[in-house]
Amino acid sequence: MITIGIDIGGSSIKAALTDAGQRIVARTRRPTMAEYERERTISQIDECIGELLAHVEARDVEGIGVGVPGAIDLENGVVYYPPNLPGWGEVPLADILSRKWDIPVRLDNDANCAALGEAHFGAGRQREHFVGLTLGTGVGAGIIIGGRIYHGQRGFAGEFGHITINSDGPLCNCGNHGCVEAYVGIHYMMREAIPLLRADMNGLLYQRAIANPESLMPVDLSEAAQQGDTTSRDILRDTGKRLGIAIASAANLLDITTFLIGGGIAAAGDPLFEGIIESAIARVLKVHRDSLTILPAELGNDAGMLGAASLML
Amino acid sequence: MITIGIDIGGSSIKAALTDAGQRIVARTRRPTMAEYERERTISQIDECIGELLAHVEARDVEGIGVGVPGAIDLENGVVYYPPNLPGWGEVPLADILSRKWDIPVRLDNDANCAALGEAHFGAGRQREHFVGLTLGTGVGAGIIIGGRIYHGQRGFAGEFGHITINSDGPLCNCGNHGCVEAYVGIHYMMREAIPLLRADMNGLLYQRAIANPESLMPVDLSEAAQQGDTTSRDILRDTGKRLGIAIASAANLLDITTFLIGGGIAAAGDPLFEGIIESAIARVLKVHRDSLTILPAELGNDAGMLGAASLML
Repeated sequence: MITIGIDIGGSSIKAALTDAGQRIVARTRRPTMAEYERERTISQIDECIGELLAHVEARDVEGIGVGVPGAIDLENGVVYYPPNLPGWGEVPLADILSRKWDIPVRLDNDANCAALGEAHFGAGRQREHFVGLTLGTGVGAGIIIGGRIYHGQRGFAGEFGHITINSDGPLCNCGNHGCVEAYVGIHYMMREAIPLLRADMNGLLYQRAIANPESLMPVDLSEAAQQGDTTSRDILRDTGKRLGIAIASAANLLDITTFLIGGGIAAAGDPLFEGIIESAIARVLKVHRDSLTILPAELGNDAGMLGAASLML
Repeated sequence: MITIGIDIGGSSIKAALTDAGQRIVARTRRPTMAEYERERTISQIDECIGELLAHVEARDVEGIGVGVPGAIDLENGVVYYPPNLPGWGEVPLADILSRKWDIPVRLDNDANCAALGEAHFGAGRQREHFVGLTLGTGVGAGIIIGGRIYHGQRGFAGEFGHITINSDGPLCNCGNHGCVEAYVGIHYMMREAIPLLRADMNGLLYQRAIANPESLMPVDLSEAAQQGDTTSRDILRDTGKRLGIAIASAANLLDITTFLIGGGIAAAGDPLFEGIIESAIARVLKVHRDSLTILPAELGNDAGMLGAASLML
């Protein structure tokens, strides 16, 4: 069974031709060009599909799955105002693509696709119930229950980033105070980092920041941490601890005790994971302590694309 | 279809003979006698069943559903260390009762039963997805997804009381800090009440407290609030606001926007509900604001018993 999986990100579109979602037969990518009109982005998607279809007969392709960064009307295949694709509004993307290519199209949210990819091919294999977190600008999640994506009432489930961890905490983009995303999202982390690195002017991170203060990114934190920089390790560990608070709340509410951590920051490794585990274990109900399992996601940037390809399975 | 529903509470056992879970044909109750050995409590349950079976032929009873205040191994019908039934440990209650009465027995958690009761016969009718909260010593919840109880991985789902709302908040019974239950549970509420009522010595609540300070209970708060006592209204409104923080987190994570509020404090009415709604609406993601629905549960003390009776449907 041949399917195509497409992951639309804010900066690039990744697409693969897969055998049953699993083996990647061919892959390609294009810039998203989100800063142009939506037709431009859609034609970038079409270019990806066209390139992949050069490898097979179109009639052999059972379906195209698309992961979109935003809310989806699943039944009708309509994208709703994706925050990182300005100017999209309401777009019947499934119809647009299936008419053009005469292939069935299914959409889902990108975090759901990433979790589904891990469920089928990554760290979620043989796990019926888990939450797949994607740490990036925000904190997305796909909730997998019984091996399937849990969508909720209208398809909006999994807004893990908007679990409150401190009701008097910093203002979040969503308008609420103290969401876990307001602590753990990339921008907040970097804002937190600045006073800390000023206090450690001999640290690796400070030297990087001096060299290029505008572009200090989480990858700098994780690289500096790996090289033993204490300030960077502390920032990552604190980030992990905050994530652990929300993980404990979610585990208690859902009775799901496996959490897979993916996305850019997850590559930061030990200090982040140590912080998560320390805080989640200390906070979760006793009944969950032994089964709590926090693991790195395995598929990296391919998770969303592979999950999208398996939407059609 | 005749079924029996039994609700085992910390102080009393309530039982009903029902027609398809819906119409109560006969009802009875006994003290739980939790302070005695577990055999005593089980014989109280047996007395309830025996009394109800006087009304029908035992062979016409399709099943007995039992709501238990604690964790359940659903598959095997085993009760695990219910906190309000000391000395129970692990009890194969379904086997014990079904052998004695030769009738199939199914167990579930009491908060799940209360939510199921509301789903079938109360404020949850015609609602496929909702969270039924029971406010009491703790904050229990039953999560209804697609008209059925969501049990989670091992049957422990719905520990709504242990959603963190302030990670540096007061110590909760569970060992975590800042669980919503550590603010909203009866003991905490009453502890909060004391300095406030001292500050308003002319208030109704203060006069009640003076008359009988040991026994000041949430019902005093709600009665005083209904009679216009400002301190009582403030306490209830603050309690509602804190509950609203956890409701917003749960709505964002689950994409479930209907919350039914039951249990003793829920009778406190307006100030509590105003607080919940104000805070939950302010904090929930915009996409949920229009659909957020906070309603009082309808079945009062019968919810658990009726839900238990409908476990067999």
